[in-house]
Amino acid sequence: MLAQAASLLNINVVILDVGANAPAKQVVSPRSPGLAHIDGSFADSAKIRELAAKVDVLTVEIEHVDAGVLQDVERAVPLGVHPSPSTIRVIQDKCVQKQHLAAHGCPVSTFMEVEATAASVTSAAENLGLPLMLKSRTLAYDGRGNYVLRETTQVQEAIAALGGRPLYAEKWVPFVKEIAVMVVRSAAGDVASYPVVETVQRDNICHLVFAPLRSGDATIAARAREVAEASVKTLAGAGVFGVEMFLMHDGSVFINEIAPRPHNSGHYTIEACETSQYENHLRAILSLPLGSTALKVPSVAMVNLLGASDDMSEINAVVAHALSVPGAAVHLYGKSECRKGRKMGHITVVATSDAERSLRIRSLLEHLPTPSSAVELDLYAPLAPVSGSGLSSRQPLVGIIMGSDSDLPVMIPAARILDRFEIPYELTIVSAHRTPNRMSEYALSAASKGLRVIIAGAGGAAHLPGMVAAMTSLPVVGVPVKGSSLDGVDSLHSIVQMPRGIPVATVAINNGMNAGLLAIRILAVGIPGFLLRMDGYVRDQADEVMCKAKRLEEIGWVQYSQK
Amino acid sequence: MLAQAASLLNINVVILDVGANAPAKQVVSPRSPGLAHIDGSFADSAKIRELAAKVDVLTVEIEHVDAGVLQDVERAVPLGVHPSPSTIRVIQDKCVQKQHLAAHGCPVSTFMEVEATAASVTSAAENLGLPLMLKSRTLAYDGRGNYVLRETTQVQEAIAALGGRPLYAEKWVPFVKEIAVMVVRSAAGDVASYPVVETVQRDNICHLVFAPLRSGDATIAARAREVAEASVKTLAGAGVFGVEMFLMHDGSVFINEIAPRPHNSGHYTIEACETSQYENHLRAILSLPLGSTALKVPSVAMVNLLGASDDMSEINAVVAHALSVPGAAVHLYGKSECRKGRKMGHITVVATSDAERSLRIRSLLEHLPTPSSAVELDLYAPLAPVSGSGLSSRQPLVGIIMGSDSDLPVMIPAARILDRFEIPYELTIVSAHRTPNRMSEYALSAASKGLRVIIAGAGGAAHLPGMVAAMTSLPVVGVPVKGSSLDGVDSLHSIVQMPRGIPVATVAINNGMNAGLLAIRILAVGIPGFLLRMDGYVRDQADEVMCKAKRLEEIGWVQYSQK
Repeated sequence: MLAQAASLLNINVVILDVGANAPAKQVVSPRSPGLAHIDGSFADSAKIRELAAKVDVLTVEIEHVDAGVLQDVERAVPLGVHPSPSTIRVIQDKCVQKQHLAAHGCPVSTFMEVEATAASVTSAAENLGLPLMLKSRTLAYDGRGNYVLRETTQVQEAIAALGGRPLYAEKWVPFVKEIAVMVVRSAAGDVASYPVVETVQRDNICHLVFAPLRSGDATIAARAREVAEASVKTLAGAGVFGVEMFLMHDGSVFINEIAPRPHNSGHYTIEACETSQYENHLRAILSLPLGSTALKVPSVAMVNLLGASDDMSEINAVVAHALSVPGAAVHLYGKSECRKGRKMGHITVVATSDAERSLRIRSLLEHLPTPSSAVELDLYAPLAPVSGSGLSSRQPLVGIIMGSDSDLPVMIPAARILDRFEIPYELTIVSAHRTPNRMSEYALSAASKGLRVIIAGAGGAAHLPGMVAAMTSLPVVGVPVKGSSLDGVDSLHSIVQMPRGIPVATVAINNGMNAGLLAIRILAVGIPGFLLRMDGYVRDQADEVMCKAKRLEEIGWVQYSQK
Repeated sequence: MLAQAASLLNINVVILDVGANAPAKQVVSPRSPGLAHIDGSFADSAKIRELAAKVDVLTVEIEHVDAGVLQDVERAVPLGVHPSPSTIRVIQDKCVQKQHLAAHGCPVSTFMEVEATAASVTSAAENLGLPLMLKSRTLAYDGRGNYVLRETTQVQEAIAALGGRPLYAEKWVPFVKEIAVMVVRSAAGDVASYPVVETVQRDNICHLVFAPLRSGDATIAARAREVAEASVKTLAGAGVFGVEMFLMHDGSVFINEIAPRPHNSGHYTIEACETSQYENHLRAILSLPLGSTALKVPSVAMVNLLGASDDMSEINAVVAHALSVPGAAVHLYGKSECRKGRKMGHITVVATSDAERSLRIRSLLEHLPTPSSAVELDLYAPLAPVSGSGLSSRQPLVGIIMGSDSDLPVMIPAARILDRFEIPYELTIVSAHRTPNRMSEYALSAASKGLRVIIAGAGGAAHLPGMVAAMTSLPVVGVPVKGSSLDGVDSLHSIVQMPRGIPVATVAINNGMNAGLLAIRILAVGIPGFLLRMDGYVRDQADEVMCKAKRLEEIGWVQYSQK
């Protein structure tokens, strides 16, 4: 993927990897003998020196390399080695990495060095509690080198499993989600971060990635990006870095680990962002201006294609299915053999909403070599509620709220029209006066949960729409509900006569249906397909009136009025 | 670009082109000797036969090939030759192409065969009028082989210029715009079209492409796609086809010509659509399901990088500049030498609006080897009006309209708040009762012109907002303007009490500012960056109130009231 990005800029790439047909070599045909690829292992110091002698800048896509050799050659490579060998050294030893981050004030969970002895591990378990995360300090990736110690009776087994390598222990982190942020750092030390993503691991290997992050806490995304950027600023060298984090129940984040390179959690950027992580890596290491990291689509998912066995046809079957999924972009890596757990490719799926994304990826997840479980499908690709059931979507675009269940008859037509347009919504009761805290929470979390419009109905004093509008930047559609006196004019005036600064989009008294239609027109600003469907709806309305007119003209008003 | 799309699907590609480092060969390193590229000309029939013997499907990216050879090998290639040799034959001779299209009822301008003699050409000029388009029937592309005959005195010169090749003549088409549609056709004959684009030629070579097409006539886009799809249905074989058309003043379209292959006017699809034209070409010729052709960004431009001389550094200078333009994706083709008029690469620029796109591409156009003229810049990348000038944007997202200039004082705050958020708008007078036709035209063309929200202010009977809402599917924000009697309640009720089916988002009486703020909240549904800026605005408002509160508490209400 890096080589493909390089070719668009006419940048020559020489690759060190084993074999003549290594994946990257397949897409880079050397333009001259001097640019010939190198056949060898990234662990072979002679080969690294051979590569260094050929290039203007050297970059490394795996951190399990000989940092010493990279340090030796660093001076001789005109534009240097990225990530910096000193950074690779810090990253390679996970305990040193944690010490580095902690020393620079970055949030990491409590950890301690341990010896590969029963006494040392038992002492760590006493100190940090059980379960305890026992980790190999080096050569650990995709979950290899991790052991969850649940009982002290497992100590010997754990040490054996981790192969007697140098270890350290981490306090167990009861996270609610794993999240990640790709950060690009220029040689001058400027950083820019990509949107926060949710990552889902399967057997400790990256399985799914979703962007943007949805959360009831609107402050998390900015905070996670700040933590990620700050952590990358502490590391030397240029390039992109994948910062993997744990999101805790209280909204705080801990850094799990940092990958000093393009990262699986950033593959989605190829289709979904203004500049891909690969192009930005190239820009960074070549001292070119960093590219925009903005998301250019409303919703995106990445599904890894992991081998389930050595049977390549299982991968080809998912790909065949993916070709019938709109918005799905297949990336096969050209690996010659499939193996269990091997990353054979990935599929990125873009969509205009999370609900559409779920619809699109659900069948993909069902067609994976190891299909998603029912629980996983329900979590990450929930089905839309049965149409007409009146149940709320788990990935709504519209929130319909009302002050009291007595407002339901007025608000149901809003839900019905959204059903008709197949637009996901949630519907609930939020009272400004009886549940002010709930109202505040609802309004403050609406945008970060993924809502794009709120429809609020209220009668009488009718404070709900305006108070919600005061606590969110989303457009709020207000429906005045007619009360027992004043014919609804009190509600109308309460809702529409908002002070300067906070608007409510008010519709007619008791006209929930128009609130739904207005919400659809508003959504069409981001999902142009709805505009065409609304055109069709308006035409249908006209046809209906024309039918009535025709009948009235045909049978005359007397018979027409008797029907 | 086709080879890059193929590599993502692990599809092996063998390329026939001159030299070992032809652009496509640079990104396809053969995995085995049997997949070695072929060094030779696409005009060499022996080389075509050599290629045909190696592949499962053969596709051609230029139509100036020997269709006879392709026809000979067609049977021997398991999945056939695409586009079909019979189609290539029709396309190759522009006069035959026009006859084919006319015979199938596709709209083409009047044309006739002519001999390369003065008598025949003069007779054509008498028949079809002057100016007359005199064209070479074969081997014409990028404007080579066209001659505009303005006077019959030029006849000999024209024949000489066209080199005595077989000719035909076309009636002059006084088009207002050139447009194009990429159509993908499956082997089974199903077609799908991409959005209509506007194309701009420079010296008869594709220079700029813009999508989606903006037009005051909302019906054009659908009509152009229909014409393009219908024309491609008349041609045999699978793959993508570029249908170039002329858009006439009355909204009708004529097909100019069809390219039976991925086309320059479809390069934008790589970054801007759910499936690129290249991937869809592969899907079509391999009998895989066709991919979604939907646009995934609100606005996109493509700028060709044409050599101005043999100085490659002129191209590199534009590229260096492009790296500082957000949303710009550079595609260099790896051509070894630059030449005047040669396509060295292209740059695609995505944006959240046409106005943002103009801002982004303007500096690119200024940095081209042959920079855009002031007229071209003004046409295709107009500057935003000076902030605070009160002048309308030429690429507005919001239309502010009012029934009378007496409503201006109420509506100006809407414009001011849009200015503050740097959102492009237009502001004018549209009266429901005094200019009903203008109102109807305004409403019907609003969406296709690129508007996403309309703010309409009106007083008294106040029909404007509701009538506009009845004729567009865009969200309409209504501002009740207080008249000389009834305190504006008449306007409010006229605007808000819309019947079921057509909503107006009504704000408080005389509150133009809230209408502007509501329009921004609505735009944020499609441009999430505005949501964050609205959050900031709401915080600023809170700070302002807090300052007042603090001062009131400090100095007491007596002194505070005296200020």
